[in-house]
Amino acid sequence: MIGILGPEGSYSEKAAKQWNGTAELRYCDDIMEAVDALLREEVDYSIVPVENSLEGSITLTLDLLMEHQLKIVGEVIVQINHYLLSKGSGRDIKIIMSHPQGLSQCRKFIKKNFKDAEVRSALSTSLAAKLASESKDIAAIASRESGQRYGLGVLAENIQDINENYTRFIVIGKNTPHPTGNDKTSIIVYLQKNRPGALYEVLGEFAGRGIDLTRIESRPTKKVLGDYLFYIDLRGHIEDKMISGALDRVKSRVAMLKILGSYPAAG
Amino acid sequence: MIGILGPEGSYSEKAAKQWNGTAELRYCDDIMEAVDALLREEVDYSIVPVENSLEGSITLTLDLLMEHQLKIVGEVIVQINHYLLSKGSGRDIKIIMSHPQGLSQCRKFIKKNFKDAEVRSALSTSLAAKLASESKDIAAIASRESGQRYGLGVLAENIQDINENYTRFIVIGKNTPHPTGNDKTSIIVYLQKNRPGALYEVLGEFAGRGIDLTRIESRPTKKVLGDYLFYIDLRGHIEDKMISGALDRVKSRVAMLKILGSYPAAG
Repeated sequence: MIGILGPEGSYSEKAAKQWNGTAELRYCDDIMEAVDALLREEVDYSIVPVENSLEGSITLTLDLLMEHQLKIVGEVIVQINHYLLSKGSGRDIKIIMSHPQGLSQCRKFIKKNFKDAEVRSALSTSLAAKLASESKDIAAIASRESGQRYGLGVLAENIQDINENYTRFIVIGKNTPHPTGNDKTSIIVYLQKNRPGALYEVLGEFAGRGIDLTRIESRPTKKVLGDYLFYIDLRGHIEDKMISGALDRVKSRVAMLKILGSYPAAG
Repeated sequence: MIGILGPEGSYSEKAAKQWNGTAELRYCDDIMEAVDALLREEVDYSIVPVENSLEGSITLTLDLLMEHQLKIVGEVIVQINHYLLSKGSGRDIKIIMSHPQGLSQCRKFIKKNFKDAEVRSALSTSLAAKLASESKDIAAIASRESGQRYGLGVLAENIQDINENYTRFIVIGKNTPHPTGNDKTSIIVYLQKNRPGALYEVLGEFAGRGIDLTRIESRPTKKVLGDYLFYIDLRGHIEDKMISGALDRVKSRVAMLKILGSYPAAG
């Protein structure tokens, strides 16, 4: 059983089917609920979005990775094609509804074509599609599958501001998968504040060993402005001696090192 | 004349008054409009939010700094105290409305106290307050000043999930201010993709000179997943020889260096 952001037709469902085509799905209202379902052991895995190629990080997911003991056991990359979907025609549309990420990804399209429409956030793109099926005034920005699921017409297709649009999902679960030869490891580090060069030293442990960082992202610690955690993804598996050696050295240099997991890379 | 996110009572208005108590203000509908007003020379400065201590970056602002020729000439830090404001009483509330950042900053409060309310995004906290003045069903999450401006009662105060909540605003304008001895410089760098250690080398130029980085933030280039720009703030003024020397060396190491400006540090 896999916990995902619902309802049916969501991009998370696409991600889940890409990762495991046969598993049963549990549709959750929001990312927090999908994580809670895993923590309460009501599902075996949860799949949640972590970054989008246009909009950047899904910050709630990053924050939940810091707050809870979660293990990343996989990743899935899904191509996002947004459709404008409604029961009504273009002239009927008074409200455009989607997940905030969907709205951001189509900001220019909305401004150009629906300048006067009210723009309203929903908890997921597929929920927006479901709500759009209840009124001709509403158009949803969501996947083609959502439109089919809720009987909506296609008013426009591929409406994202930039055509290449991908979302990376992480699979969270319990057990670290064995090395496959093409793996990634995700960590969070907290440097001491106000020590110039601290991040430089940490990155040096990886650069000196030729370890490739695929991502580095800062998030506020939520204590004071200017105090950050760094989320780092790197190529390699924690069972590789070079990776574990680098992480041991990093640990001695930082105030906190949290290892989120090692898992097969999607690309 | 300063362009800010309106309407009256917004946190941006607080920032503008903190920066210059007497300047005339122009209230804009959204961040993009505040930037446009400056580009069209309809205002002398615009003040826009760039990061919050709980929620992190205002990504639209970061993206606009990359897209347009804008000069950062100042920064302002404003303490954020969110209030739950309405014409109705707690039991009347069916809709909770705020800017998405305000909603995120009060996520736990909403989940605990208004589990069944519809949560709706508005373009600004003060616009949410204005809309709340039109219906007893709606409560806004906004500043105390917004509530006073639109005649709303206070249902709860200091409702953000973590009490220490600050937003950093940047002032964008035309001319780089002279060094004050306590300045910051903001830059964007684009490294070549897939060259391990490239970020390490860039940070080395600063670390080797003892230059303090106050912030480092990655944003997607919007081309492919895993391709990032880095936004870096550092202590010092571009007219300092050490800073300009470091930036010259950085420029020779990266695919793109954009200098956003040097300006007096707020703290």
